[in-house]
Amino acid sequence: MNNPLSFSVKKTEGKARMGELVTPHGRVETPVFMPVASQATVKTLTPVEIREIGFQIILSNTYHLYLRPGIEIIEKLGGLHKYMGWDGGILTDSGGYQVFSLSRLRKLTDEGVVFRSHIDGSEHLLTPELAVQYQEALGSDIAMVLDECPAHDVSYEKTRLSMNITHILAKRCLDTHTRVDQALFAIIQGGTSPELRRHSAEYLTSLDFPGYAVGGLSIGEPKEVTAAVIDETLPYLPENKPRYLMGVGSPEDLFEGVSRGIDMFDCALPTRVARNGALFTPEGRVNISNARFTRMEEPVVSGCSCYTCRTFSTSYLHHLFNAKELLAYRLATIHNLTFISELMKGIRESIADGTFESHKAQFLSQYQTTNEQVRVSQKEKWLKAREDFD
Amino acid sequence: MNNPLSFSVKKTEGKARMGELVTPHGRVETPVFMPVASQATVKTLTPVEIREIGFQIILSNTYHLYLRPGIEIIEKLGGLHKYMGWDGGILTDSGGYQVFSLSRLRKLTDEGVVFRSHIDGSEHLLTPELAVQYQEALGSDIAMVLDECPAHDVSYEKTRLSMNITHILAKRCLDTHTRVDQALFAIIQGGTSPELRRHSAEYLTSLDFPGYAVGGLSIGEPKEVTAAVIDETLPYLPENKPRYLMGVGSPEDLFEGVSRGIDMFDCALPTRVARNGALFTPEGRVNISNARFTRMEEPVVSGCSCYTCRTFSTSYLHHLFNAKELLAYRLATIHNLTFISELMKGIRESIADGTFESHKAQFLSQYQTTNEQVRVSQKEKWLKAREDFD
Repeated sequence: MNNPLSFSVKKTEGKARMGELVTPHGRVETPVFMPVASQATVKTLTPVEIREIGFQIILSNTYHLYLRPGIEIIEKLGGLHKYMGWDGGILTDSGGYQVFSLSRLRKLTDEGVVFRSHIDGSEHLLTPELAVQYQEALGSDIAMVLDECPAHDVSYEKTRLSMNITHILAKRCLDTHTRVDQALFAIIQGGTSPELRRHSAEYLTSLDFPGYAVGGLSIGEPKEVTAAVIDETLPYLPENKPRYLMGVGSPEDLFEGVSRGIDMFDCALPTRVARNGALFTPEGRVNISNARFTRMEEPVVSGCSCYTCRTFSTSYLHHLFNAKELLAYRLATIHNLTFISELMKGIRESIADGTFESHKAQFLSQYQTTNEQVRVSQKEKWLKAREDFD
Repeated sequence: MNNPLSFSVKKTEGKARMGELVTPHGRVETPVFMPVASQATVKTLTPVEIREIGFQIILSNTYHLYLRPGIEIIEKLGGLHKYMGWDGGILTDSGGYQVFSLSRLRKLTDEGVVFRSHIDGSEHLLTPELAVQYQEALGSDIAMVLDECPAHDVSYEKTRLSMNITHILAKRCLDTHTRVDQALFAIIQGGTSPELRRHSAEYLTSLDFPGYAVGGLSIGEPKEVTAAVIDETLPYLPENKPRYLMGVGSPEDLFEGVSRGIDMFDCALPTRVARNGALFTPEGRVNISNARFTRMEEPVVSGCSCYTCRTFSTSYLHHLFNAKELLAYRLATIHNLTFISELMKGIRESIADGTFESHKAQFLSQYQTTNEQVRVSQKEKWLKAREDFD
């Protein structure tokens, strides 16, 4: 099929891969983390800042953009890159996950899904054909197929049914897709079943997509399960295509994903927790609102290369959060995204040097993980939404 | 008295003056507008952006900084410039106006005022000696005396009493002030009475301050009254000292103030209305939330030099406001402050060229003014607060 991307693995260490993905909007070094710009903005930041932090590709959401400002407006004004002033790579999610997680699902038919907007409750139809048409109108570099993502704890039979729906949706997306400067990625489903994951990978790779995502993970299942599912899925994906783990982005999970062979990640976590005052440090997250920071002259992370740490004391950032000043959310976002950008850079360099495993071990020995399910709150909404369907 | 400032008027046209004020933190071209950074941040912006927009001096508030994070913390961390990462000029207001406008005044004694914090209701004492001590600790380039600002519509007798208190406060501030790299400005009061204004100017200039503010204006009185009071006050101020009109900052009022001989202005209006979606254009303010902007490809102001207009369509800014994205408030602030910065630059250039009056006439013939009392909501709180006192 049509593939405007070129992808090459340049170095491996165990299953970890270091490489390069060339998109119609520039080169992306992998493994890569994509910051989330659901509503055509990485919250609080300008495109200039995203570039300065070091990102080469971001993620945006068809679901959000469809509801606001509307796909047709963005298309009329020259596409998503121009609309949001970003000349790097863009991957768009299809809207499938959001329809099940954010909106209230109304009806699943042979044609597609009828859902209600989480903004105003209005009713909308999403079909695989529309999901592709919208993403072609947005002009992202990488579009995603529409998929159906089951909860991690439903029965084998329901997971199988859901996987089969995903396969039908993927084929319909592929048959619809025509834009030559946009790649369409498939999404492997199959829940926690090794058999279903293998079947899903084998079926979807037979259709020869330019890239493959592992979907349906980080939605409430234990982390060992996430790891096991990745291990059971990746051997059935082609070596020469990028592998994308959706919705993953805590420092510890990025290391885990890379060590299992993942090339691409996205997650709202680093930016969302920043706005809540949780800042990444090599020792784990700190809560900037804590009174112990009131008089701290040092930056949040000594030696950190981010604008926030280069310019301001921890005391100042603490003050801005305490006073609910809008600059607070921005400075924290810059710090957390710089932390993740530098973390991915360190991962790539260590794979190139053949020191990834020791680098990972060293990082994790210092970093106090937060036992948090990244998308738990979304998952709860989503399980609720599925009651209509199950 | 001690004067670390050098001020020179380079060109005049009528009463309008174009000149230069040199502070311990750099040169300031006058007439100048100072953006407001009450809580040690020009809301939403970094110091780098404030500089890029073209500002050379900003205003911060002793009252706010005293309550949060606390004067002693800022002093311990190296002073206000270092704390907020701003190496340009800083003028600090004394806290007098805020005590009467924002807080709930409890008691006026010979020593000073006891007020309640607008944040947590806690009780605090502010004296002229403390107001100076706090501003010396902050290390601003220009400190303001503590003053007592009467409502514009109280009796002559009350205005006179209030003016006399202001004079006592000013003298006590002057007697306390020692910091050699900081100038202390006096504040002329006297309400709407030409006699009292003249008396206040004559008394305070006899003390030889390095600069003089006209206080007690733009607090609800008709604009003709504001203009008349300025005209009645300025002839009694020395020509070789800067004249500062406090709390004024709408485009039309800046032109009016300059034409009457004012050199310095500050106001929260341009940044506050930006966050509410009101953007300055040469034709007046527009409300970005208006549906007519939904599909507008052009920037808010064609040819505008600001980052927002150079980068984004009006449609995109409309979308960000509609989606309540934090970037919206920032892009609007950049636009409005650039508009004001460019407006002041145009004013200075036109005085230099001897074309100020025609430039002013041309601007005002296009610009639809908003008949708004800049500080009305503050004034209401303040009148209420004064009930305890009157």
